[in-house]
Amino acid sequence: MSSFRTIYWQDNKVVMIDQTRLPNEEIYLEFETYEQVANAIKTMIIRGAPAIGVAAAMGIALGALKVNTDDWDKFVDEVNKITAVITATRPTAVNLFWAGKRMQRIINSGESRNVQDMKERLVKEGQDILDEDIATCRSIGIVGAQLIEDNSVVMTHCNAGALATGGYGTALGVIRGAEEAGKKIKVIATETRPFLQGARLTAWELDKDGIPVSLITDNMVGHIMSKGMVDAVVVGADRIAKNGDVANKIGTYSISVLAKSHGIPFYVAAPISTIDYDCPDGGSIPIEERDINEVTHILGKKIAPDVNVYNPAFDITPNANVSSIITEKAVVSDPYLKGLSDLIK
Amino acid sequence: MSSFRTIYWQDNKVVMIDQTRLPNEEIYLEFETYEQVANAIKTMIIRGAPAIGVAAAMGIALGALKVNTDDWDKFVDEVNKITAVITATRPTAVNLFWAGKRMQRIINSGESRNVQDMKERLVKEGQDILDEDIATCRSIGIVGAQLIEDNSVVMTHCNAGALATGGYGTALGVIRGAEEAGKKIKVIATETRPFLQGARLTAWELDKDGIPVSLITDNMVGHIMSKGMVDAVVVGADRIAKNGDVANKIGTYSISVLAKSHGIPFYVAAPISTIDYDCPDGGSIPIEERDINEVTHILGKKIAPDVNVYNPAFDITPNANVSSIITEKAVVSDPYLKGLSDLIK
Repeated sequence: MSSFRTIYWQDNKVVMIDQTRLPNEEIYLEFETYEQVANAIKTMIIRGAPAIGVAAAMGIALGALKVNTDDWDKFVDEVNKITAVITATRPTAVNLFWAGKRMQRIINSGESRNVQDMKERLVKEGQDILDEDIATCRSIGIVGAQLIEDNSVVMTHCNAGALATGGYGTALGVIRGAEEAGKKIKVIATETRPFLQGARLTAWELDKDGIPVSLITDNMVGHIMSKGMVDAVVVGADRIAKNGDVANKIGTYSISVLAKSHGIPFYVAAPISTIDYDCPDGGSIPIEERDINEVTHILGKKIAPDVNVYNPAFDITPNANVSSIITEKAVVSDPYLKGLSDLIK
Repeated sequence: MSSFRTIYWQDNKVVMIDQTRLPNEEIYLEFETYEQVANAIKTMIIRGAPAIGVAAAMGIALGALKVNTDDWDKFVDEVNKITAVITATRPTAVNLFWAGKRMQRIINSGESRNVQDMKERLVKEGQDILDEDIATCRSIGIVGAQLIEDNSVVMTHCNAGALATGGYGTALGVIRGAEEAGKKIKVIATETRPFLQGARLTAWELDKDGIPVSLITDNMVGHIMSKGMVDAVVVGADRIAKNGDVANKIGTYSISVLAKSHGIPFYVAAPISTIDYDCPDGGSIPIEERDINEVTHILGKKIAPDVNVYNPAFDITPNANVSSIITEKAVVSDPYLKGLSDLIK
């Protein structure tokens, strides 16, 4: 496990490490309302598809706890509204909607129509999702470790680590899994502009856990690959279409093209909850555009004049650029349509 | 011409715009000694291969002026030492060595062995190099404009603009040339980590001159190209080997691979003085490694924990990824060995 906690439930509050202040400050924030949790997701105090799934579930539980009624129908109405607010925070990561649906399923399951019972049940479900996420990441680590050779250098982008999940990580879960299997792994982390998740979070998380990591700027990827310094790329995913196209942090697509042109395997590690079986291909995945200040300012300092700026938060890597998708159940390779659908048979 | 000055000679001083403070402050610094000029090159107060060629020549002239002797041999000795200090500031840009050699050639030409005459002659040579550089860039603009279609979107990396030259620019010279030929051009500038020359300098320079520019982070290149938003890439060069391999700002190689995979023409614009005919191929070009603080700190703020960091300042784009090299004399395409050698016949 990692030596810190990303998100947990305590005394009817949600506690999160503030990922906007890392690596300079390690601060844990407590949230008492679902609106605060929604804001934490929006402002990226917590980020990473699986982690915001957990946050969404716990946020809904927090909101449900505070609904002041014993009338079942009113309660359900209110929880629906809360769920709508929580799931409207970010458009790309499918785990947000997956968590919302899972909480709805508990409510609609018929197991209880008692408001107090259901409040407890939703709180438990949020915690279950967290525990399951950690277990899922551990499985991803075990499944993925077999793809990573001893003494290899693995490049990763953004942060698909313990900080992006309930703990342990997806892409970094594969690296932790390989380490736990006795392999010596070195990591190259891209800094991942504009939000610098690689520099601020991945470098911090791996360094803290004693896994050797080297930091590069995003534009060094091709150069570093051309020098033969990279054996494999492993990244996470925010949403995977049913044909295997992958939405992930902006820059992932460029890395996939560069990996392909250098003959380097490119792996995507993600829980099955990240696969959107309703989404036929990458073209159907909405790409969030974020505030241009993320590009023009770094830690509050202005680095550019007032010109036009693009700030797509994600891009689409076509399945043809993906060597394999590593899930908690199995490694899936081309043809993805069949392989991914077999996972839920 | 651009609406600001990069470097000029005034009252036996060298004046430069401080490129480390742009875009937030537009400050002109005066240098009175060659050591100050060497330091300005090292710390990137001035940068860009042609601009540091001009700075090197003017720095040598400044140093020569202050040599306190009328003895010709002593004078030559001192100027040699000054030249060695100036040309040791940065290893990759060949214009630095080219300018040093050109100043040496004046001294060794035999046209005078009078110290006072030679001091004036060297001052004049520095100014001539500046004037010629501007004229050369204008020619590059005229030659290159024919490759750029009306209403096209041109991506550029780093800053190969007026700020990187005596004025007008190489890559941005091509864009200015196309504009002056009546074409409507929009530019996409990559921010160019770690030193942010794209965000801080190219965006500032184009915005100041009224040329539409959109800023992206370096890792958005593939995504933006995949959306069909880029018609051509034009970059500068720090050194071109005689086979057409190009050393340019880190990230250039990645962009060249991405351009190739999207069928987008990739042009390099540079004066003939950037071609190193003594250098057989890119593998022979020394790549400067700069201080890791450039990666771990942005405008003085720390963005990463204390981990291992790579900071190569340049990379090599193989000639196979270069559609054409635009010089002041002609557009050269494959086979480069012949085309580049024809330029100096």
